[in-house]
Amino acid sequence: MTPSEYKAEYARLRSLAEEGLSRLPCGGEREPELADMMRYSLLAGGKRLRPVLVLAAAELCGGRVEDALPFALALECIHTYSLIHDDLPCMDNDDLRRGRPTSHKVYGEAPALLAGDALLNYAFELMLSYDCPIDPVRRIAAAREIAEAAGMFGMIGGQMADITDRTDTPERLAEMCRKKTGALIRGAVRAGCAAAGGSDSILAALTAYGEGIGLAFQMVDDVLDVIGDSAALGKNVGSDAKEQKNTYATLFGVDGCTARAKEVTDGAVAALDGLPGSDFLAELAREMLTRLY
Amino acid sequence: MTPSEYKAEYARLRSLAEEGLSRLPCGGEREPELADMMRYSLLAGGKRLRPVLVLAAAELCGGRVEDALPFALALECIHTYSLIHDDLPCMDNDDLRRGRPTSHKVYGEAPALLAGDALLNYAFELMLSYDCPIDPVRRIAAAREIAEAAGMFGMIGGQMADITDRTDTPERLAEMCRKKTGALIRGAVRAGCAAAGGSDSILAALTAYGEGIGLAFQMVDDVLDVIGDSAALGKNVGSDAKEQKNTYATLFGVDGCTARAKEVTDGAVAALDGLPGSDFLAELAREMLTRLY
Repeated sequence: MTPSEYKAEYARLRSLAEEGLSRLPCGGEREPELADMMRYSLLAGGKRLRPVLVLAAAELCGGRVEDALPFALALECIHTYSLIHDDLPCMDNDDLRRGRPTSHKVYGEAPALLAGDALLNYAFELMLSYDCPIDPVRRIAAAREIAEAAGMFGMIGGQMADITDRTDTPERLAEMCRKKTGALIRGAVRAGCAAAGGSDSILAALTAYGEGIGLAFQMVDDVLDVIGDSAALGKNVGSDAKEQKNTYATLFGVDGCTARAKEVTDGAVAALDGLPGSDFLAELAREMLTRLY
Repeated sequence: MTPSEYKAEYARLRSLAEEGLSRLPCGGEREPELADMMRYSLLAGGKRLRPVLVLAAAELCGGRVEDALPFALALECIHTYSLIHDDLPCMDNDDLRRGRPTSHKVYGEAPALLAGDALLNYAFELMLSYDCPIDPVRRIAAAREIAEAAGMFGMIGGQMADITDRTDTPERLAEMCRKKTGALIRGAVRAGCAAAGGSDSILAALTAYGEGIGLAFQMVDDVLDVIGDSAALGKNVGSDAKEQKNTYATLFGVDGCTARAKEVTDGAVAALDGLPGSDFLAELAREMLTRLY
């Protein structure tokens, strides 16, 4: 796959996600205030990495992107709610997110709290709605992947580890990152695979891949935070609490962290070895090393 | 059904719910801090009205309570998360809930926020877990009922109406209550019916019943708030914001509100007319008039 083929493929999947997101929440005119808040955060841009991974994994398993779309959109709703709640004063107390005022700065704390709750709940409304065309057993399996990735044993557990500063050793930092950012990325490829009815061996390969790129994603992010490219990427920087925390870059240094990210990425790509149609995912992993999408 | 038969039946269903709740969250030892917080709020007592309604509706439709249990427990998780988030400083800022310190008073705001998120998410993990024995189509239908009842067009929409004070007219107050407290009660009987594969006509009857008792529940609650029995019922009173808000009791007076609650209850019982096995639900509606369970 050439770089331009890769870019075109990413753009195709991303625009499917963007189109789907632009129509959410369905029936929002019945609750205009909540719908506006949800849209404000959902449509704030971003790379749409998680939905792209859901769709790409589904296609790799022979599924249709339309069938996997509810799961892709649900995952972005969950990612977005987690950002709204993370930005609240009692959490990271951030005023800006992707260069725009955070939800609670625009709408107030209580409405932002509810907008986050609504997005989490809406993710499940989407996955359980009437018009999902896929087999009910696959549908339950894909929704379960996302529920487990997002919950107390996944992302929320990671947020809890983060706020209680369980990041003092490399092992504890890895555990926190594995859950806080890794779980949704791993869950994305697993949900796409489950929605398309992929085999157990493909699921295992995609799981190893997802775990690898989730870790590499965090390492690259940490390096970029240190070398100061974060602002250019639209990321939020400058919170005191964040600056005092360990990251992969503070633990291993920029060079050490970059080297580890490369190793982990090689492992993720190797996990895909032999899978027909996995060129795009392999290239995505490699591209992630040099810049974030 | 005699009063003692009714009490025994309520106790039977309630103890099934209590037993199930006492085992949650499954695997909690992997995330002890979150699990402790979730349990602190889940096991704070309460009437377990919503799970009892799920189980009773499932039995009325010929289903087994064991099969409906995940939905009953999920609904209580959702009810509990909504109380944790409602109590937060940015919402009602309550220090006490059922006579005990609220979650954020014990654990801090950020952990309480995450415990609420975890309970909402966990409700779906429960409903989507591997060991649910019922047919996948019914399972999706029952989970969808709960998702829709809890979401932006249900409970969260009602919370939004509440915090933005859309309670200035009887119509707007009714709309807020229909969503904030009514949606989960309506959703409880609908989910129980869906889990057991009840017919459309039973679903319609249960829906009318659920809407009626949800409204009566709120009216009785409002009357009790005014006549000062709230403390004895373990409810939270005394927040200034709450006292300034309209309720059914302030709009219609204690006597007017009591009369309306009786009318609405009669309607709810009438909606069950002709349904075999509906004695318990009819009696539950009548009992709700005189005291809260």
